[in-house]
Amino acid sequence: MNIQASSDTICALSTAPGIGAIAVIRVSGKQALAATSALFSKDLQETASHTAHFGRIRNGAGEIIDEVLITVLREGHSFTGEHTVEIACHGSNFIQQQILQLLLEQGCRMAEPGEFTMRAFVNGRMDLSQAEAVADLIASESRKAHEIAMKQMRGGFSNELRTLREKLIHFASLVELELDFAEEDVEFADRTQLNELIIEVLNYVRRLSRSFELGNVIKNGVPVAIVGAPNTGKSTLLNQLLGEERAIVSNIAGTTRDVIEETLNIDGILFRLIDTAGIREGAEEIEAIGIGKSFEKISQATVILILTDSAQPESLAQAGTWSEELQQAHPGKIVLVLGNKSDIGAAGEWTYSTPFLAISAKTGDGIDALKQKLSDLVLGEFDTQTDTIVTNARHVDALRKTEESLEKAKDGLDTGITGDFVAMDIRQAMFHLGTITGDISTEDLLGNIFSKFCIGK
Amino acid sequence: MNIQASSDTICALSTAPGIGAIAVIRVSGKQALAATSALFSKDLQETASHTAHFGRIRNGAGEIIDEVLITVLREGHSFTGEHTVEIACHGSNFIQQQILQLLLEQGCRMAEPGEFTMRAFVNGRMDLSQAEAVADLIASESRKAHEIAMKQMRGGFSNELRTLREKLIHFASLVELELDFAEEDVEFADRTQLNELIIEVLNYVRRLSRSFELGNVIKNGVPVAIVGAPNTGKSTLLNQLLGEERAIVSNIAGTTRDVIEETLNIDGILFRLIDTAGIREGAEEIEAIGIGKSFEKISQATVILILTDSAQPESLAQAGTWSEELQQAHPGKIVLVLGNKSDIGAAGEWTYSTPFLAISAKTGDGIDALKQKLSDLVLGEFDTQTDTIVTNARHVDALRKTEESLEKAKDGLDTGITGDFVAMDIRQAMFHLGTITGDISTEDLLGNIFSKFCIGK
Repeated sequence: MNIQASSDTICALSTAPGIGAIAVIRVSGKQALAATSALFSKDLQETASHTAHFGRIRNGAGEIIDEVLITVLREGHSFTGEHTVEIACHGSNFIQQQILQLLLEQGCRMAEPGEFTMRAFVNGRMDLSQAEAVADLIASESRKAHEIAMKQMRGGFSNELRTLREKLIHFASLVELELDFAEEDVEFADRTQLNELIIEVLNYVRRLSRSFELGNVIKNGVPVAIVGAPNTGKSTLLNQLLGEERAIVSNIAGTTRDVIEETLNIDGILFRLIDTAGIREGAEEIEAIGIGKSFEKISQATVILILTDSAQPESLAQAGTWSEELQQAHPGKIVLVLGNKSDIGAAGEWTYSTPFLAISAKTGDGIDALKQKLSDLVLGEFDTQTDTIVTNARHVDALRKTEESLEKAKDGLDTGITGDFVAMDIRQAMFHLGTITGDISTEDLLGNIFSKFCIGK
Repeated sequence: MNIQASSDTICALSTAPGIGAIAVIRVSGKQALAATSALFSKDLQETASHTAHFGRIRNGAGEIIDEVLITVLREGHSFTGEHTVEIACHGSNFIQQQILQLLLEQGCRMAEPGEFTMRAFVNGRMDLSQAEAVADLIASESRKAHEIAMKQMRGGFSNELRTLREKLIHFASLVELELDFAEEDVEFADRTQLNELIIEVLNYVRRLSRSFELGNVIKNGVPVAIVGAPNTGKSTLLNQLLGEERAIVSNIAGTTRDVIEETLNIDGILFRLIDTAGIREGAEEIEAIGIGKSFEKISQATVILILTDSAQPESLAQAGTWSEELQQAHPGKIVLVLGNKSDIGAAGEWTYSTPFLAISAKTGDGIDALKQKLSDLVLGEFDTQTDTIVTNARHVDALRKTEESLEKAKDGLDTGITGDFVAMDIRQAMFHLGTITGDISTEDLLGNIFSKFCIGK
């Protein structure tokens, strides 16, 4: 993908593939209006931006291919920044293909994945992290993932990074200025202030890096394993958790039931249940877990719910021992013991270090508390509404490199190293921050990023 | 589905379900502009028709759900005839669901399948056969199927039927007028002319009925069985036929390869290959066919291609005998013998009654002729460009009932039956013709028709 070559006009199906009532084909580039007009019953070249036009598309033989509604978005007023035409046609595969074929005959070419968004970036309509958020937004399956992607697409993340970068530039320039006056041994950049700034930026960058773990699970869903001895109520618990949501989701067309069946949306966070089928059948048993062994289900999970029958003393004791062992063996995982059948009454006190929650899967008692607890445990120190959460492996990689450079700069300041080395480290940190927003980018980097997009975006 | 209750406002996802770069949600009804404006960053209620508006959709808590492009089509200028809003949002499942949910909260309801098109019918934007053609258009997978649906959607069929109906009305009225003057024994309706008219209409209706067989295979694809002894070149032939098309299709996004792999598009007609996998593997052999037995593959097929090695006399003779037996056993099917390996040279003359074509699957010789032959054999007496082709079982049923009534009317005229019976039969024929265009319709009929549509159309 050549990032300079946006002189040509691209086209693609922008709606989901397959048959629908309507489909939208997007055309962008200098020739978008001319190419479309050549097929259409009306000349669109002088039409105003943001107008819609009903008419017929004909092939070269004059046969009517479809009756369509075309929306014109002129240069400077579109997503890509270029002349853009959106053709809403009937959603048959045949019509979609015919119209694309006719556009190709008019000199357009098929857009590569993400090419519309890449043009938006190249034409300065959005920075790189915003462009990447477009793909995240489209892929987002839960409220939190959506919230984070939307925030990033609207530039929240970029603005914060830019502010940091500007501060660093200011100091780096001062340090570099000193070098020009090296013989005079002046100090334009206050070392204490510079040190404070670096610590401030470091803290910020470290917090962003830490947020990636959360961002990643929010983006991809939090893997949850529910384990428990037979008859502790796994299936009932699952129905309690899933029941309400199902009713809402099945209301709305276009939802894949398959996806829903194995996921839980709690407080806008998607929890992916590992091996739900097994849970429903009650097939696997806590006896089989073999704590300490590499148990696949537990190794995949971020959250492990141990379900126990709180009316039975031995069940409680077993869960207590196992859960403590689990926590020791996997310190990074969230382990929560659920004392089920709270409606019958507890057989004893919970004296173990693992977090415990009394619930009744049957009556629904404690289920809201469980949801709140799960959400709190996953979110940890972060508030997705106010904090920036990093969801992108490329970003976190750049942030970690920024961190390294800043640590070197800080070490340099602490040990009184000469200004040119400090300035170099700061410049290096700025470089890495710049790759996030795309202030610094290469063709390879862009090609790599946009090739992961879907076609038509 | 209540055909009267279009006072409420409906909404649905109109693009194919699943994730795409963009998705379009359609809203139609009195409250479409008000309901959408309540969510949108701009008031759309007084905006002009055919204008597009970029802005943000927020939920009740003020959170941004998406940045969208909304197209406004005002009452009298839209597909349904009602105020219509098309919301082009980012194509994530989450966003699609959120926006629909917000519209429901604003008092819209989810559209039932085909309800937008039904409203177009109820509001007089199109007649019933045109509305049905919309669904056919969306489902059409080949040029011919598309051509027929487009013609029907644009009213070609309806206009012809209406002309016939008007002629019948004219005569029926004259015959009925005679009844008012029964005592005077006058004859306003010229019996010879009436007889000629009925014959004209009968011929037309019969031709339409006959076209259904063609229309049905064009709509659903023509089932083809390729049979042949081992090493006659089935796989090579298939590659010859499929090769070229594949290259075109794989160019364009959104094509399901699965579908392509087992179909052939010849001259705009879709041919569905029965048991292609078998053909590729060369598993089944002509020896196994057992002519006369109920062989499943042959019983499903409309076209049977028998591939033979024309360089081998015994292969030719075998194919000759078998093909003639096949034609006798299945007079309705199209049987064609292909003498392969024409590049090597034929072993003898073709002396059998079955159509024969010399080809070379290897060099491609005769393949164009084969395609032409297949297309000619399927189309028979009809020309899809100029003739109306019936594709709908409901229509052909109504046409056959029309035919029956007209035959009764004709018998009545021939036997000099009294005018009131003749008039009744003509009225009955008109009734059946009227059900095709929807001049006569019932709620049940409409419910039945539109429930087969996809949602969002």
